Amino acid sequence: MAYLDHAATTPMLAEALDAYVAAARQVGNPSSLHAAGRSARRLVEESRERIAAVLGARPSEVIFTSGGTESDNLATKGIHWARRDADPRRNRVVASAVEHHAVMDAVQWLGCHEGAAVDWLPVDRCGRVDPASLAEVIDAHGDEITVVSVQWANNEVGTVQPLPGLAALAARAGIPFHTDAVQAVGQIPVDFAASGAAAMTVSGHKLGGPVGVGALLLGRDIAATPLLHGGGQERDVRSGTLDTPGVVAFAVAVEAAVKSQQEYAARVAALRDELVARVRAAIPDAVFNGDAADRLPANAHFSFPGCEGDALLLLLDAQGISCSTGSACSAGVAQPSHVLLAMGADDDRARSSLRFTLGHTTTLEDVDALLAALPGAVERARRATAWKTPRQP
Amino acid sequence: MAYLDHAATTPMLAEALDAYVAAARQVGNPSSLHAAGRSARRLVEESRERIAAVLGARPSEVIFTSGGTESDNLATKGIHWARRDADPRRNRVVASAVEHHAVMDAVQWLGCHEGAAVDWLPVDRCGRVDPASLAEVIDAHGDEITVVSVQWANNEVGTVQPLPGLAALAARAGIPFHTDAVQAVGQIPVDFAASGAAAMTVSGHKLGGPVGVGALLLGRDIAATPLLHGGGQERDVRSGTLDTPGVVAFAVAVEAAVKSQQEYAARVAALRDELVARVRAAIPDAVFNGDAADRLPANAHFSFPGCEGDALLLLLDAQGISCSTGSACSAGVAQPSHVLLAMGADDDRARSSLRFTLGHTTTLEDVDALLAALPGAVERARRATAWKTPRQP
Repeated sequence: MAYLDHAATTPMLAEALDAYVAAARQVGNPSSLHAAGRSARRLVEESRERIAAVLGARPSEVIFTSGGTESDNLATKGIHWARRDADPRRNRVVASAVEHHAVMDAVQWLGCHEGAAVDWLPVDRCGRVDPASLAEVIDAHGDEITVVSVQWANNEVGTVQPLPGLAALAARAGIPFHTDAVQAVGQIPVDFAASGAAAMTVSGHKLGGPVGVGALLLGRDIAATPLLHGGGQERDVRSGTLDTPGVVAFAVAVEAAVKSQQEYAARVAALRDELVARVRAAIPDAVFNGDAADRLPANAHFSFPGCEGDALLLLLDAQGISCSTGSACSAGVAQPSHVLLAMGADDDRARSSLRFTLGHTTTLEDVDALLAALPGAVERARRATAWKTPRQP
Repeated sequence: MAYLDHAATTPMLAEALDAYVAAARQVGNPSSLHAAGRSARRLVEESRERIAAVLGARPSEVIFTSGGTESDNLATKGIHWARRDADPRRNRVVASAVEHHAVMDAVQWLGCHEGAAVDWLPVDRCGRVDPASLAEVIDAHGDEITVVSVQWANNEVGTVQPLPGLAALAARAGIPFHTDAVQAVGQIPVDFAASGAAAMTVSGHKLGGPVGVGALLLGRDIAATPLLHGGGQERDVRSGTLDTPGVVAFAVAVEAAVKSQQEYAARVAALRDELVARVRAAIPDAVFNGDAADRLPANAHFSFPGCEGDALLLLLDAQGISCSTGSACSAGVAQPSHVLLAMGADDDRARSSLRFTLGHTTTLEDVDALLAALPGAVERARRATAWKTPRQP
């Protein structure tokens, strides 16, 4: 078994699971006024402080949510609504063309359901947004824009965006800038205050914490209309009983991931580079996608000409290798990746792609296992494709 | 320590926590196509089937969410949007005046932000909705109503609503009926199909499952606009990585709660009746709120004339007794309960209330501990109130 799909979800750290269990054995709703409630509240607030400290945020800027998808939706819809309501002339959203579906589909909904104008920032062949394209949109429509959303690093091809530059352009124009940092935290240095972003999405299960827990870091002066109304928890921005065990485990994982980031990145990047070199040697016509330098250390992404990515995935799976054709969230969907298409790939190249993502449990044996299986799988996948493709007359 | 606030949150069952840990030790995103993903998907689907089976639903009707608040928001806003978009003449929402804040505030937002007309169904002195009032609203505005929402049982005073009658009125008019059954499941018999409801909210941490996990049971023919867009999980109604360990633990808890409901209800009702009788004997002018018969077995709710509920809560807390002045979600908010006001109580009576809720860990010793502390606490609270109240001239 070689699990090379850590970007889809990575195993929960033992210390995070232990923290979950310890907190779950105590009873108390953090909103209750009695001793049990106050004790749960203390655990939540300590967790908030730990997360804030390692991510360069103030504790009051940490809004706990059910994960990356909710944080992305809250940032885009919530900030859009709040700023549109404050000034109805503002009804335009800007996002990159390579966002995760949780941003992309939320923004599309603001377009088709809420009548917002939407600008998609193009990317280059490596998947990078050119700050000039954002500057252009801001020059043309700055007064109308409610929110700009550009991910910190891409979940499919691993390209890291020139974040501080993009955020600074938005900040200069007085426009809140949101970034989905789900894949970035723990892999590269991430500092909310230094980034200049107004809002940032973090998720638990991508960095060794529990699924179903995440946060939106939200600047104290940034208004967001809630998606979930109710008891008024989390600055009245996100109602719902606070998940004390989940939050505690999340904080343990975030702290561990950020504190070990440098050492972790060096270790997985070395393994990843070994994987890339060996894949290139074994499959000389494989195309390495994304940026070679500004890239997540745990990400390798290839197109294998003449293969269907899905077929390749299943052939590797039969050999005990777990990887992905792209985002797990859109797995099973028979559409070529919007990320690769935005990078200028044609349908065939987009459909022939596989993502290998490493994590804290990855060893050289996983790379060995992949390389033992990959050449045969590529050959089989190519035969299957050739058999399906009608012969040219 | 006597924990009498199980309606705020109840300890996680040992078997639910064990199931969480076992699932958390496996890696795999249920949306991934490889073996690890399929194995996680299997755990999720088995959990869906278990929940559906004991709640009278089809597996495909179970939409996993982050809990009661999200389910309530999804049902009200989601069904409202979907039906308004299908026919813009429909722009009216009906809910009872005693809903949990997660329904009440969501519906108020549809009113003030989305321009919906809102009808609040009144309740009698016991907190019960009269089906005639719903019939009246439907007669007057049936064509305009997008969704009706009436809780199965009240979270503060424990009154059980005449649910099948209410749901049938809505169904006859072709209007989807949503019910928040967060407090009902495990305490009284709950059957989704038999209830006639189109949507039903269930939460994990009120019945021995984890916090941060819940479900919306949603009839297969009921459209709901998502609150969370993204990967398209859960019939495309609720995106976000499925929380496999949380869902597995939730299913264990729901199954245990429903299967033991009858025995559990008999046991806690006997303890609750003992508690009520002894409170009445000790504090003869205490007012027992809610319906005496159609009531959750684990709920006792009193007003103590001349006391501030908050002061009483803290005095009891100092003696190791945990209880609540109402919903934990609105604890700390210096407003009298909207539930008691809707039941015709005046401000003073509403502010002088305490809720005692029993649970699976409650014993007669907890009742003894409460009764040992309560008379002294009531006397102190009364002295404090008298001191604060200006003398009549």
